[in-house]
Amino acid sequence: MNSNTFGTAFCLTTFGESHGAAIGGVIDGCPAGILLDKSLIENDLLRRKSGQNNAMSMRKEPDEVEFLSGLFEGKTTGTPIAFIIRNKDAKPSDYENIKNVFRPSHADFTYQMKYGIRDYAGGGRGSARTLLPCVVVGAIAKQILATQGIEIQSDVVQIGEERSDSFSKDDIERILSRFREEKDTVGAVVRGIIKNVPVGLGEPAFKKFHAVLAQAMMSINAAKGFEIGEGFNAAAMRGSECNDAFVTCGGRIGTATNHGGGVQGGITNGEDVVFKVAFKPIPSIMQPQQTVDIQGNPTTIEIQGRHDVCVVPRVIPMVEAMAAMVTLDFVLLKKLNKM
Amino acid sequence: MNSNTFGTAFCLTTFGESHGAAIGGVIDGCPAGILLDKSLIENDLLRRKSGQNNAMSMRKEPDEVEFLSGLFEGKTTGTPIAFIIRNKDAKPSDYENIKNVFRPSHADFTYQMKYGIRDYAGGGRGSARTLLPCVVVGAIAKQILATQGIEIQSDVVQIGEERSDSFSKDDIERILSRFREEKDTVGAVVRGIIKNVPVGLGEPAFKKFHAVLAQAMMSINAAKGFEIGEGFNAAAMRGSECNDAFVTCGGRIGTATNHGGGVQGGITNGEDVVFKVAFKPIPSIMQPQQTVDIQGNPTTIEIQGRHDVCVVPRVIPMVEAMAAMVTLDFVLLKKLNKM
Amino acid sequence: MNSNTFGTAFCLTTFGESHGAAIGGVIDGCPAGILLDKSLIENDLLRRKSGQNNAMSMRKEPDEVEFLSGLFEGKTTGTPIAFIIRNKDAKPSDYENIKNVFRPSHADFTYQMKYGIRDYAGGGRGSARTLLPCVVVGAIAKQILATQGIEIQSDVVQIGEERSDSFSKDDIERILSRFREEKDTVGAVVRGIIKNVPVGLGEPAFKKFHAVLAQAMMSINAAKGFEIGEGFNAAAMRGSECNDAFVTCGGRIGTATNHGGGVQGGITNGEDVVFKVAFKPIPSIMQPQQTVDIQGNPTTIEIQGRHDVCVVPRVIPMVEAMAAMVTLDFVLLKKLNKM
Amino acid sequence: MNSNTFGTAFCLTTFGESHGAAIGGVIDGCPAGILLDKSLIENDLLRRKSGQNNAMSMRKEPDEVEFLSGLFEGKTTGTPIAFIIRNKDAKPSDYENIKNVFRPSHADFTYQMKYGIRDYAGGGRGSARTLLPCVVVGAIAKQILATQGIEIQSDVVQIGEERSDSFSKDDIERILSRFREEKDTVGAVVRGIIKNVPVGLGEPAFKKFHAVLAQAMMSINAAKGFEIGEGFNAAAMRGSECNDAFVTCGGRIGTATNHGGGVQGGITNGEDVVFKVAFKPIPSIMQPQQTVDIQGNPTTIEIQGRHDVCVVPRVIPMVEAMAAMVTLDFVLLKKLNKM
Repeated sequence: MNSNTFGTAFCLTTFGESHGAAIGGVIDGCPAGILLDKSLIENDLLRRKSGQNNAMSMRKEPDEVEFLSGLFEGKTTGTPIAFIIRNKDAKPSDYENIKNVFRPSHADFTYQMKYGIRDYAGGGRGSARTLLPCVVVGAIAKQILATQGIEIQSDVVQIGEERSDSFSKDDIERILSRFREEKDTVGAVVRGIIKNVPVGLGEPAFKKFHAVLAQAMMSINAAKGFEIGEGFNAAAMRGSECNDAFVTCGGRIGTATNHGGGVQGGITNGEDVVFKVAFKPIPSIMQPQQTVDIQGNPTTIEIQGRHDVCVVPRVIPMVEAMAAMVTLDFVLLKKLNKM
Repeated sequence: MNSNTFGTAFCLTTFGESHGAAIGGVIDGCPAGILLDKSLIENDLLRRKSGQNNAMSMRKEPDEVEFLSGLFEGKTTGTPIAFIIRNKDAKPSDYENIKNVFRPSHADFTYQMKYGIRDYAGGGRGSARTLLPCVVVGAIAKQILATQGIEIQSDVVQIGEERSDSFSKDDIERILSRFREEKDTVGAVVRGIIKNVPVGLGEPAFKKFHAVLAQAMMSINAAKGFEIGEGFNAAAMRGSECNDAFVTCGGRIGTATNHGGGVQGGITNGEDVVFKVAFKPIPSIMQPQQTVDIQGNPTTIEIQGRHDVCVVPRVIPMVEAMAAMVTLDFVLLKKLNKM
Repeated sequence: MNSNTFGTAFCLTTFGESHGAAIGGVIDGCPAGILLDKSLIENDLLRRKSGQNNAMSMRKEPDEVEFLSGLFEGKTTGTPIAFIIRNKDAKPSDYENIKNVFRPSHADFTYQMKYGIRDYAGGGRGSARTLLPCVVVGAIAKQILATQGIEIQSDVVQIGEERSDSFSKDDIERILSRFREEKDTVGAVVRGIIKNVPVGLGEPAFKKFHAVLAQAMMSINAAKGFEIGEGFNAAAMRGSECNDAFVTCGGRIGTATNHGGGVQGGITNGEDVVFKVAFKPIPSIMQPQQTVDIQGNPTTIEIQGRHDVCVVPRVIPMVEAMAAMVTLDFVLLKKLNKM
Repeated sequence: MNSNTFGTAFCLTTFGESHGAAIGGVIDGCPAGILLDKSLIENDLLRRKSGQNNAMSMRKEPDEVEFLSGLFEGKTTGTPIAFIIRNKDAKPSDYENIKNVFRPSHADFTYQMKYGIRDYAGGGRGSARTLLPCVVVGAIAKQILATQGIEIQSDVVQIGEERSDSFSKDDIERILSRFREEKDTVGAVVRGIIKNVPVGLGEPAFKKFHAVLAQAMMSINAAKGFEIGEGFNAAAMRGSECNDAFVTCGGRIGTATNHGGGVQGGITNGEDVVFKVAFKPIPSIMQPQQTVDIQGNPTTIEIQGRHDVCVVPRVIPMVEAMAAMVTLDFVLLKKLNKM
């Protein structure tokens, strides 16, 4: 069962644990003949890595990508593109203390119960570090989308109880530093906008554009909510407010408003695709917490090491990556709609 | 590309247009030897049909299911279970007026642009009527889950700006009648709870329980938002509030709170799975609306016939159906985790 | 698990038992805007039905196809095309005698053991009648391929020990009548040729053109062998004999010989795709046979009714159908190779 | 499109080119808790490497496997098992001479035409070296099957025009040396037997055991034919000869003969699964051959380096590997047949 594979035409399989030898991915279905700009991949890995100046996890993660296949003289060949990122500073011994104890709101317990065995170091397969391959592939997908004029923009619009149309880096650091001082963590909301989307992306019934986008976003660690267009606001609206009237503008049919967030019937209508993803606070807090050990005995855990205070800003390239993969997949699949 | 198929082990393919000859589905992967109670299927179809007493669409929809295969002496045989529901009162001629005009916030425009052709009668494949096969299969899945003690409960928790822990039928009718009188429609939020869920459902990476559940829910017509556990509330919380401490209770490891909504790392932890789905107002309002015709010329449309004022309460069995399908699929897939 | 689904881009799901209410199929992924000629479908169903003049099974099978969805004004709309064929003369009571006895070399035993239950009437899901949906869809695929100039030809090249480059109808009837008189059945080999195939169909590794074609052909009831190009002959050849030298002819690169059968590395090279399928004798012979009952007690069975003597000529449209589905699928998938 | 993925429950994705940085694979769906014996993997890689004493390709291929994920303290964890094999002696410069020329009956031409670009060194993705990941995974699958008592045996039964029930190593070397001296290559047939197969493996319609096995075998480079049971012989037989009578033996229902090769209706019946695969001669012959260059101009090519004379005996572990993967996949899928 390939639960570690995402996409239909542009297909990514990921692997790896936080403190294993390496994490990586295999792209199957990348169109041939595309010259990849590796600096754009490095750039997104850097955004992923160094998002939180002081707040960032102190573990050094050089995140150097080695491509193993599928490229020839810098271009994609149509065959699988495999790549790995070595876990250079892996120290499984640092995690002896969570070997037999379940960290609250982490995946330790569920993995242990599901499989009867788990790689506990750094959270193993459950670690957010396992998202790195998506960031790499998202950076590739964004390059390919750019050749079609499609762009993805993302903004932090909520941290804890503070909201904004788009928090600046300084705003984010200011807010997060408060929670860091209190040895606590905090949730956030990220908004993504896919621009210059062609009409007709998404497939009827179960592969609606926003249904697959929702799956993609909810696959990101700590994601707890997804909205397209008005999202939960739409529940409070009337039809006469929420409908998007069609208008012709510049010889092209569009809508006067975009409450729908760029999709109708699950298919893009040419307006910007606007979505939001809510993330819970990072569960690794610097406070003692009540829990149980592997035998079910009550105990207290103090999580060690330095951890992020919030998924933002490091989750941003990940949100973009998943949006890019979904969009590129549907761009390719659209080719199959007619002979 | 099988975009009309949902599920991995328990797999439903649906077909049909609102005013075509029939709509229906094929279940592939239903375990063999299960005696189906057809009255439970009829019951859910009735809930789907007659939800809104006065408010319901006046079109008669007897929704009689004919099973064509996969059953022998009332039991499942392991082979595909196909069924159809005839569209008895189909009158495509009633829809001549929308042949060349795009109804705002319906799928008319996107289908036309994607495929260059569309069955416009009643919205064709984009109609909410095409969800009926899911209701049928959900009723089957619920029966099978019930043999494992798993139940699904659903409640309407918001209509327009009114909120409740669970609106009664009378409440719903009272609120909706107000919008009906104003010839308008309104959005709503439905909460689903999956009870007695085994630990270990859901798969790592991209088939996390709540990621697939999100896809399932966002596949329902008019769905605009999805939350698991605290959902968007989690963004405003601190880790020290949002974490679910492990406790041993009755010899079983559980959590003291359930902010996570029953999943950790995408895998169920044995607590109730709690989720919410936000729906936009039904776009068919009884008011003239600005739009364009198929050539892009501005025009005004008045949608005819009687239409629902809100997706609730008729969407409720549909929410349960998708939740049941997702849960059953993961119950089956869990068998593959160990030899 | 959708084992009753075939194809990736052009995707068929079939259902139905020999004596159930109906058999049928759902095509997901048929390109939109194609005007279907139903007479070509009827024609292939007739070839399937009336192949063996005297030899044909006496059961009346009007094989009338009813299309339920996916067509609008005769054209494909891009949504699922569902169709059914009613089993009008179904008489499950005729099969009481095989209810508790396993017919040799039929699927009675394996279905019973696999599922613990089986629809025994006429072989249930194991009946060759369940191939009818493939014939319908093959006729559709052939129409679409014809718009690209691609044609499929098939010939009977062996019946029992007699071989020919292409047996005529009269030859076939002459040979089969001999076995019919002896109350026995006989095997056969069918050769298929796909003509005017574009270069580049088939995908690396596991979806090689001939690997998927082999799966398709071996899915046909009674198929026991598959060859591409020289097939088993190739084992007796030298490289210097078997290699196909490249030549330029009419401005196009081709091969001087076609030992490979039109594929190299699993991808079509523009030459005719030539393959053969071997079928075993039909296991329903008009002679008493040793077997066991459902408790394992030895018994003798005499299969009743009139049955075919050989899979040919009725299997021919089925071979063409599977070849057409595979080819169309790869024609569509090729669109994904480049942006 | 994941054409480089094989399997449904036990799922392998492969990647890599002959002279790229590395080749490898990712297994998704390996059951958790299995202690892997790496010496068995090395053993099969050795059989793959050193099959042909004098005849073997002189290229040194240490074929050292590095596991990157999915194992913890030597046991499978249920998460993806990724591994790589470095191409240590890769010398792309050795292949300048085939950069612009198509080797007859290799995949050079078809890859170039399909993708507009190809990694020509050593045949790139078309090289038989890319099968190594299957050998690794086959060795894992065989270990898991062994815990169920299932074994796979394989024999060379034909080389060129010589046939045997099972050629010895010395026989093989004797025959091949003759062709080597003549600077030619030769085809072969391998027979596989899967022993102690449970009843009920394989799925109806398109995932019949032998249909998927055929796809698997035809995915192996140079495979041109597949037979299950009597295979093409069945075409010459009568039903009265070819049918396998049921008998009860030792309290278990079996068949008196095994013409069917262990499958009935696509599902295993508990008898040995017996199949054959025909391979063409290796196309790299030590003789000048007529061909064309990338512009279509006639030219002559002399393939350099040392190459195998025949796919046997090196292909044997590959045949076993694919058989093991198919069998394990169906063993897992059978768990889904009943609740």
